[in-house]
Amino acid sequence: MAETDQVAASADRLAAMNLSDSVQNHAFSDRVLILSIVGRPDGGAGLAGQRVRAGGWVKTGREQGKGTFAFLELNDGSCPANLQVIVDAGVAVLSKLVATGTCVVVDGILKVPPEGTKQRIELRVESVVHIGEVDPAKYPIPKTKLTLEFLRDHLHLRSRTNTIAAIARIRNALAFATHSFFQEHHFFYMHTPIITTSDCEGAGEMFQVTTLISEAEKLEKDLIKNPPPSESDIEAARQLVSERGSAVKQLKDAKASKADISASVVELNKVKESLSKLEERSKLKPGIPQKDGKIDYTQDFFARQAFLTVSGQLQVETYACAVSNVYTFGPTFRAEQSHTSRHLAEFWMVEPEIAFADLQDDMNCAEAYVKYMCNWLLEKCLNDMEFMAKSYDKGCIDRLRMVALTPFVRISYTEAVELLEEAVKGGKKFENSVEWGIDLASEHERYLTEVKFQKPVIVYNYPKGIKAFYMRLNDDMKTVAAMDVLVPKVGELIGGSQREERYEVIRERIMEMGLPLEPYEWYLDLRRYGTVKHCGFGLGFERMILFATGIDNIRDVIPFPRYPGRADL
Amino acid sequence: MAETDQVAASADRLAAMNLSDSVQNHAFSDRVLILSIVGRPDGGAGLAGQRVRAGGWVKTGREQGKGTFAFLELNDGSCPANLQVIVDAGVAVLSKLVATGTCVVVDGILKVPPEGTKQRIELRVESVVHIGEVDPAKYPIPKTKLTLEFLRDHLHLRSRTNTIAAIARIRNALAFATHSFFQEHHFFYMHTPIITTSDCEGAGEMFQVTTLISEAEKLEKDLIKNPPPSESDIEAARQLVSERGSAVKQLKDAKASKADISASVVELNKVKESLSKLEERSKLKPGIPQKDGKIDYTQDFFARQAFLTVSGQLQVETYACAVSNVYTFGPTFRAEQSHTSRHLAEFWMVEPEIAFADLQDDMNCAEAYVKYMCNWLLEKCLNDMEFMAKSYDKGCIDRLRMVALTPFVRISYTEAVELLEEAVKGGKKFENSVEWGIDLASEHERYLTEVKFQKPVIVYNYPKGIKAFYMRLNDDMKTVAAMDVLVPKVGELIGGSQREERYEVIRERIMEMGLPLEPYEWYLDLRRYGTVKHCGFGLGFERMILFATGIDNIRDVIPFPRYPGRADL
Repeated sequence: MAETDQVAASADRLAAMNLSDSVQNHAFSDRVLILSIVGRPDGGAGLAGQRVRAGGWVKTGREQGKGTFAFLELNDGSCPANLQVIVDAGVAVLSKLVATGTCVVVDGILKVPPEGTKQRIELRVESVVHIGEVDPAKYPIPKTKLTLEFLRDHLHLRSRTNTIAAIARIRNALAFATHSFFQEHHFFYMHTPIITTSDCEGAGEMFQVTTLISEAEKLEKDLIKNPPPSESDIEAARQLVSERGSAVKQLKDAKASKADISASVVELNKVKESLSKLEERSKLKPGIPQKDGKIDYTQDFFARQAFLTVSGQLQVETYACAVSNVYTFGPTFRAEQSHTSRHLAEFWMVEPEIAFADLQDDMNCAEAYVKYMCNWLLEKCLNDMEFMAKSYDKGCIDRLRMVALTPFVRISYTEAVELLEEAVKGGKKFENSVEWGIDLASEHERYLTEVKFQKPVIVYNYPKGIKAFYMRLNDDMKTVAAMDVLVPKVGELIGGSQREERYEVIRERIMEMGLPLEPYEWYLDLRRYGTVKHCGFGLGFERMILFATGIDNIRDVIPFPRYPGRADL
Repeated sequence: MAETDQVAASADRLAAMNLSDSVQNHAFSDRVLILSIVGRPDGGAGLAGQRVRAGGWVKTGREQGKGTFAFLELNDGSCPANLQVIVDAGVAVLSKLVATGTCVVVDGILKVPPEGTKQRIELRVESVVHIGEVDPAKYPIPKTKLTLEFLRDHLHLRSRTNTIAAIARIRNALAFATHSFFQEHHFFYMHTPIITTSDCEGAGEMFQVTTLISEAEKLEKDLIKNPPPSESDIEAARQLVSERGSAVKQLKDAKASKADISASVVELNKVKESLSKLEERSKLKPGIPQKDGKIDYTQDFFARQAFLTVSGQLQVETYACAVSNVYTFGPTFRAEQSHTSRHLAEFWMVEPEIAFADLQDDMNCAEAYVKYMCNWLLEKCLNDMEFMAKSYDKGCIDRLRMVALTPFVRISYTEAVELLEEAVKGGKKFENSVEWGIDLASEHERYLTEVKFQKPVIVYNYPKGIKAFYMRLNDDMKTVAAMDVLVPKVGELIGGSQREERYEVIRERIMEMGLPLEPYEWYLDLRRYGTVKHCGFGLGFERMILFATGIDNIRDVIPFPRYPGRADL
């Protein structure tokens, strides 16, 4: 990696570390981060002579000089660069150190290496504090180049590869950039619910959340161990109640002592209670509870059907309509049988919502946010971006720069369709037909942003027929105030809209779409009482990472991908 | 609210807004935040004479001067303070403005009010841009003092109350403080999975995530609309295949033309295909798919049983053992029938994990993190804290100051038990007995932190029998390197441990606890290959908010609480 990039990449972190001439320990551990050595502007050269404790995993190790010493390339995941470590045979058993994946902690002195080597600093080991060995014959991810597809079968170890670690650092940077952007602009972070009873916009198939199955299994086991009472058991118990009842009556009739009577009443109550327990148990039926031929959800955990959220938008609107500027950043779910490289069953979405704001404000916010993230990566993550450029996508850094610097093109859906029709006339072939009123396909979006404009494009004012009921109806009565942000490499990155704030209009739209009103009454209340013009959008967080890194498969940019047939760990 | 508090509270936000002598618009909307007017150090006085657009919801409105003008207390949720707005009858129909909850956007001039009023600035309205009316007869949350319990039945509107809005801002502040703390200390934010197939530590009852029920319901509907074929349908189809087969054979035997033979083969293939479809359909059975008397989870979405996570710890360890310092901050779930004021079915947890670090480092990190959050609230959220102190918990600000400034007491579990036994001897009554080997009850924890030490207490080295298998066994072979952070008001705020990094020891511990090894093989791999000393902890985010605000019920500190029988919205 070029030295200048190291400088830019680490400047910010170093500033935070207040690193001057001495290497500082990581706050909560006695070893130093490798970032704080090789990540310095001088590549660590200024630290020569200092005694440090370093820890990490061996990326490459080799014995040299007929076994008199070993070179280790050590990395602790704090940055892509390794620290070169030299261990003499007198200090440790070298063969235990050199296998890829070995964890070592060493104490030593930083020295300037001989001229002609690419390192600016290296660590001469005085003692080895810890070795976490690896048997290279068994290690599932040896040094050989492994495909991303292969690594998906080893989720728990793939974070030790350069690629997955770099993606993790980029993902972290984008997440913190997201929070920083919205906090700087006075948005409040809101946790919208993961478990929801609102189906809402019908954004897609939902996962059901339930305890009915486990409760049924528990009951089944219990009934096998402890079978329900038979009819004759119950009859016997009834008989006993009747006998004890008669006994009480007899004692009373005979004017027996209070003590005797109450003793006999106690007896009666005991047998009554055990009868009622038997009757209760006799009603238990194995299987999922049913009522009128349907599953009885009143017996589920939330006393109704519950699902995993597909979007926090409708819920976050309740806060926008109270504290003005909010955003949610959380997991969302789709139970769809999509086996593509662009879909996950569990993924993260960023959804801001702004009150007192319209579609223009929405587009301004979306553009500013995307640019902010690009600048953030260029300023704080350049070393990782360099790695991605070298290994996966030559153009990824230029793409970030272009998006950060270029004003986004803004065209209406109608203009977009005209441009696509022109392209077709000019000989461009699309698999999907282009016609006003039909949603743009991914190939159309990619054409607009990658070929026609070669920069980000915001398409706005879509036909109402292809958009959700909550999007604000425009005065033309044909389109709604929706907008999509399209970027090269991934196409649609953001979808948003101004929300319909007029009670009568949104009510009409719900009915027009054949949706029931009742589940939306709470949502209508936001318009019934103190309604406010507001807007918002959703950004697919993994799409942003694909855009930034140039990685092709979405399963490689989330630590634990979930998709049909797979949910490892 | 005292002016000095306003000054401290808003200084930071103002710095970010670069606010000097002119009031600045909110970045993505043409109105100004009320925070940017009344939140200034001078209470807004310096802005007199400026023309602004302000928007918000009416907290209190009243017509005055025999209906010639109206006073409105306007709030947009950006801060607890209201902006006083004065509207003349000539400008708008006053009766439409004054109802609590009305949304208004107004243009006007900021003026210094007459002497003797508590406001430092007020807005004289020149025109009303928007009114979102409220019918006070129907508004579910009128101005009268409403209980928090009542508000729980109106989740979608309760954010408009001063209390819930203040809690939302405090929650936001603590979330961003969390990210800021860990980012400053070079931790990477990791998204651990929400849907998991690892049961892991048996931390509690889990919610099941499934598509089996909805798939079964779909199938059931389909079978009613389109019944499966009868045995005679299938027999008839078989007959047809056999006939068409004979026809082909006859043509071949008769050496018919190639064209005739292939036409007849086409016919044969058609009837074969329709037979196989019928046979396929005849196998469809309504209900959840079963195999060998059990639910056939190979047909579920992930091809196995899946649950909502109870903790991201085990998964985040895979990243700690690769990139050293990580944290996860996400929703976690418990399907427990807890109807207490301290339990939710869905709540948020912060879980850092540090490699090359031991229990001491873990305690240092936990203490620094809690102190950081306290300081953050005192510096950036003091106006909201003042509101909580005034309305709910007089001592909440002093408590933050005390925790921020006081070194945490650190005592071993054994010492803690001795102190509790002494207390019992001294006459202190506990409901739960105190004895070495039994977990501390909440009352014991509260006694230690609230009565005995009156400051935060970290208890460490617990008996191994009451702690999870992954906690590192101490040399005494009786205790594990676990630690709990106890604070006044809530008791246990954090639970953590050094993790067992020794392969043989952790394997032994899993078996000792009667757990199967197979589900933990991936977890064991972290110890098998390049093992590293590491530790981590979990902080219940809602508990931290309870601690900070003094609110009693956890259902009031999360926007959308989920608990048995309730998952509104």
